[in-house]
Amino acid sequence: MSFGGYTAPLSPDGRAGIVPPPPWHYAGDFLIAEYRTDPEAVAALLPDELDPAEDAGAVAAIFADWQSCSADLHELADPIQSQYHEFFIVVGARFRGEPVSRCVYIWVDKDFSMYRGWIQGFPKKLASIHITRVFAAGKATPRLEAGARFGATCTANDRQVARMVVTLEHLSETGPRVNDPPMHNTRHFPAALGSSPAVFELVRAGGRDREVSPIWEGSAELRLYDDTLEDLMAIRPHEMMRGYRFSFGYTVDGVDVVAQHRHPQRGASKVNAGAAATMMRGTEQA
Amino acid sequence: MSFGGYTAPLSPDGRAGIVPPPPWHYAGDFLIAEYRTDPEAVAALLPDELDPAEDAGAVAAIFADWQSCSADLHELADPIQSQYHEFFIVVGARFRGEPVSRCVYIWVDKDFSMYRGWIQGFPKKLASIHITRVFAAGKATPRLEAGARFGATCTANDRQVARMVVTLEHLSETGPRVNDPPMHNTRHFPAALGSSPAVFELVRAGGRDREVSPIWEGSAELRLYDDTLEDLMAIRPHEMMRGYRFSFGYTVDGVDVVAQHRHPQRGASKVNAGAAATMMRGTEQA
Amino acid sequence: MSFGGYTAPLSPDGRAGIVPPPPWHYAGDFLIAEYRTDPEAVAALLPDELDPAEDAGAVAAIFADWQSCSADLHELADPIQSQYHEFFIVVGARFRGEPVSRCVYIWVDKDFSMYRGWIQGFPKKLASIHITRVFAAGKATPRLEAGARFGATCTANDRQVARMVVTLEHLSETGPRVNDPPMHNTRHFPAALGSSPAVFELVRAGGRDREVSPIWEGSAELRLYDDTLEDLMAIRPHEMMRGYRFSFGYTVDGVDVVAQHRHPQRGASKVNAGAAATMMRGTEQA
Amino acid sequence: MSFGGYTAPLSPDGRAGIVPPPPWHYAGDFLIAEYRTDPEAVAALLPDELDPAEDAGAVAAIFADWQSCSADLHELADPIQSQYHEFFIVVGARFRGEPVSRCVYIWVDKDFSMYRGWIQGFPKKLASIHITRVFAAGKATPRLEAGARFGATCTANDRQVARMVVTLEHLSETGPRVNDPPMHNTRHFPAALGSSPAVFELVRAGGRDREVSPIWEGSAELRLYDDTLEDLMAIRPHEMMRGYRFSFGYTVDGVDVVAQHRHPQRGASKVNAGAAATMMRGTEQA
Repeated sequence: MSFGGYTAPLSPDGRAGIVPPPPWHYAGDFLIAEYRTDPEAVAALLPDELDPAEDAGAVAAIFADWQSCSADLHELADPIQSQYHEFFIVVGARFRGEPVSRCVYIWVDKDFSMYRGWIQGFPKKLASIHITRVFAAGKATPRLEAGARFGATCTANDRQVARMVVTLEHLSETGPRVNDPPMHNTRHFPAALGSSPAVFELVRAGGRDREVSPIWEGSAELRLYDDTLEDLMAIRPHEMMRGYRFSFGYTVDGVDVVAQHRHPQRGASKVNAGAAATMMRGTEQA
Repeated sequence: MSFGGYTAPLSPDGRAGIVPPPPWHYAGDFLIAEYRTDPEAVAALLPDELDPAEDAGAVAAIFADWQSCSADLHELADPIQSQYHEFFIVVGARFRGEPVSRCVYIWVDKDFSMYRGWIQGFPKKLASIHITRVFAAGKATPRLEAGARFGATCTANDRQVARMVVTLEHLSETGPRVNDPPMHNTRHFPAALGSSPAVFELVRAGGRDREVSPIWEGSAELRLYDDTLEDLMAIRPHEMMRGYRFSFGYTVDGVDVVAQHRHPQRGASKVNAGAAATMMRGTEQA
Repeated sequence: MSFGGYTAPLSPDGRAGIVPPPPWHYAGDFLIAEYRTDPEAVAALLPDELDPAEDAGAVAAIFADWQSCSADLHELADPIQSQYHEFFIVVGARFRGEPVSRCVYIWVDKDFSMYRGWIQGFPKKLASIHITRVFAAGKATPRLEAGARFGATCTANDRQVARMVVTLEHLSETGPRVNDPPMHNTRHFPAALGSSPAVFELVRAGGRDREVSPIWEGSAELRLYDDTLEDLMAIRPHEMMRGYRFSFGYTVDGVDVVAQHRHPQRGASKVNAGAAATMMRGTEQA
Repeated sequence: MSFGGYTAPLSPDGRAGIVPPPPWHYAGDFLIAEYRTDPEAVAALLPDELDPAEDAGAVAAIFADWQSCSADLHELADPIQSQYHEFFIVVGARFRGEPVSRCVYIWVDKDFSMYRGWIQGFPKKLASIHITRVFAAGKATPRLEAGARFGATCTANDRQVARMVVTLEHLSETGPRVNDPPMHNTRHFPAALGSSPAVFELVRAGGRDREVSPIWEGSAELRLYDDTLEDLMAIRPHEMMRGYRFSFGYTVDGVDVVAQHRHPQRGASKVNAGAAATMMRGTEQA
């Protein structure tokens, strides 16, 4: 008799684990808005091991509408095990002089994807996320054509996080740029006791068997909101760049550890700064 | 200044209404399993004005993955206002000698669709619903081809309602049959006081500008569960027929009233029968 | 054999109905913030039959944490059938010269309560709602004492609706005032076709066997948000009044019809005003 | 400037972390049903380091209705950051000869609690969970008295997990027994690549400043369901023991590592056993 699993809950045949073992196959539709914000605010979100990018204030706000599965594809016929939506914010950076990207915030609407994200260095929280889709029949759908409008919304912790609209103009020659370099995230898992994490690794995301549809490009509108638990006003849009819509698939076997983080990071204290996030800004709104 | 709206909440410009005025455009993907159950149980779900169908025990279990919008299409760029999933159970019947169909139970995952359903005679409750989708890139998607498996699940009120898998075999020559005749549902709205409803109309659903994709047909598996608030065991599958998968779009302007229901229906009392639904069947499961 | 039910879905024994027949018993905890806003904006939310209140800009923002059941109490042992949260906005008015109140917007997190609300003239939409609770043990709870802070949040349609904090000071001599006069809401149900509603009644809410705990009073903070589908900025707080926290229970048998509304209301057109609500205000936020 | 946090997402002041640093204060209401199942099935859920308990088939099914916060209590006034519901299954065991307990499965309805659980060795998945509450006014509430009925339900991944009813009889002299010994769970976090976990520790849960209300005891009904992703039929009730209802609070600073797990556990392979969980059992139900 065996006992275990790739993830807990451990069980006699491993099937109870919240995430099945890799490889993980992904198929998704993307809606991206690129913009520029305060370069200092982006730098403040990078660990010591990463330096600012050349276009240091460039940010990609990304909505993704996913279906994923493991090697035997069994999740596809049980879609609550395979479908989820994401909203994430990606910035540029450099690692040992080479361009990289980094996911600084990310939200998702399923538990298996949330935990699979933490394994790979994506610090996912739960959210409600909606993204316009294309259907094969009927009038209640945009088509992939100039003038079509795609929208998306994200709300987490009873707070509005983001709203985006991309209006398609033409097929893109470049595609999105900010999230193009290899993503360098941080795998972080606290210790049983104390403030030094048990796992604290800078990792490079990879993936194989990449497949991408033609990429539509157009104008982008994006609003980030001012009452979130994260400080999104620090990285709000100062200048909108372009929007993109496309389909993408790939397969992931895990991530590569490229460095161990020093800790604590720049003297981050254990002080709970959360209290500031609960101040009401309401009575002065009039 | 105006004040009102097609639906409440009424407001100075009407925009706050939970449902915008028709026409309503719909685009959706359907997953259907047809089966036979006890004809007596189907007859027990028909109002006096409807007679049993020729194939009196035939039932269609239908999952639908929808996007909808009103005349100016504005909901499409704000998808939480347009997207929803449904699971519904349709039986055959006859009205004045002609074949009709009738939705006896239905669940949905958005409020606007729930209330728009009640307006049209669909007695919708809320549920969590998931349906396998087709993506344009990647391995984590079925293709529309023989052998592809599409699944769906529905849970409501912390109870499992239904799970379905359809395995595609070939394009269908007939398409689904049970829900093909015009649907005859009941618009019902209680009075402010007392047991006689204020609205109690037999209505015929219509729709225009219908568009349908090629219809795939295959084998179907379906399980209905035994602990729901509705008596689904009475209409559980005795014999599975075929499964279907296709895309469909149309436009609805409202429904036609074809009769006023007599009431009370066959002596239905005001007695609260809900208690029976809460009996625990658990301790005897071993 | 009977067939029917107090509400649809109609079924052989009536048990499938989304709402059981009255009486409905309620037990709940309330968190209220009273404030003043633009009296013109309040007047714009009143039907012709109601006149402005004496304190014409007074508003009550109310969070309620409910448990309810029908006559045989069976829902209490199956709490998904009995528990829900609400956020609603109540204004004052006069009807035939007498002070009344009116619920202009309301959100809830369960389907049975949503539909039971429509029956009684509460135009409920779905939302995610959270309200601080008092527990009998442990440090992670406020006590009913001076200095205790109670908070609440409401999010609907991926939009932030409201956030409130009340800090208790002392037992109240008056209790809340705005929602004290009898509530006069509108029962509204659209016709099968066309724009004139099938049901359009001004109704007075009542209730019996009222029971209320001591009422705590204190300072109140409230923020309404600017990106909702309803125009909440029109009735945002200009001046905060007091906050209240208490428990309340009563029993409802239905509502009394006091007038038929004339329609259409002040020339409300069928024009879909929703498009305005989808304009993005994001890119100019910097 | 600091950068970091107790948990990711790391941020300039640490406030964005999904879980704030300990101590964590908890206040909750518990509903417990104890029962006996197959001792072999319980043994199959224990890691090598733990031996079966004296009453080797004893199990506690536990619903908990929680409010929690960190040191400065700020979450209490923002209840979406503090409230959550849990359902968990606890078995007895022995470690180095001493009685211990172990949580083998657990579900929760908030992300912060899910991840805080993983840090402490609770392998939490998301679920919808409801638990009967006691209110201070009104008829729609049980009182803490003989004959009162408390119920609870749990649904996860569109599957029904558990339904429980406890009917109070009298104050308990013993309280619940199965979960009384110190809980010994497993902290598990996968490696970036490969099948050997990066963290795999047997930990003992503690806690201080424990406070408990009087404990009510009574009869218990429990149903576990047959279509879950975990094999709950293996540990379904063979014999019901007693039910309990009480309030409890404590404070947690972390957990103590008492052993490193050997791995792999008893030859657990990487084989994905999930496919078995997706077989349909529906067509043979008639």
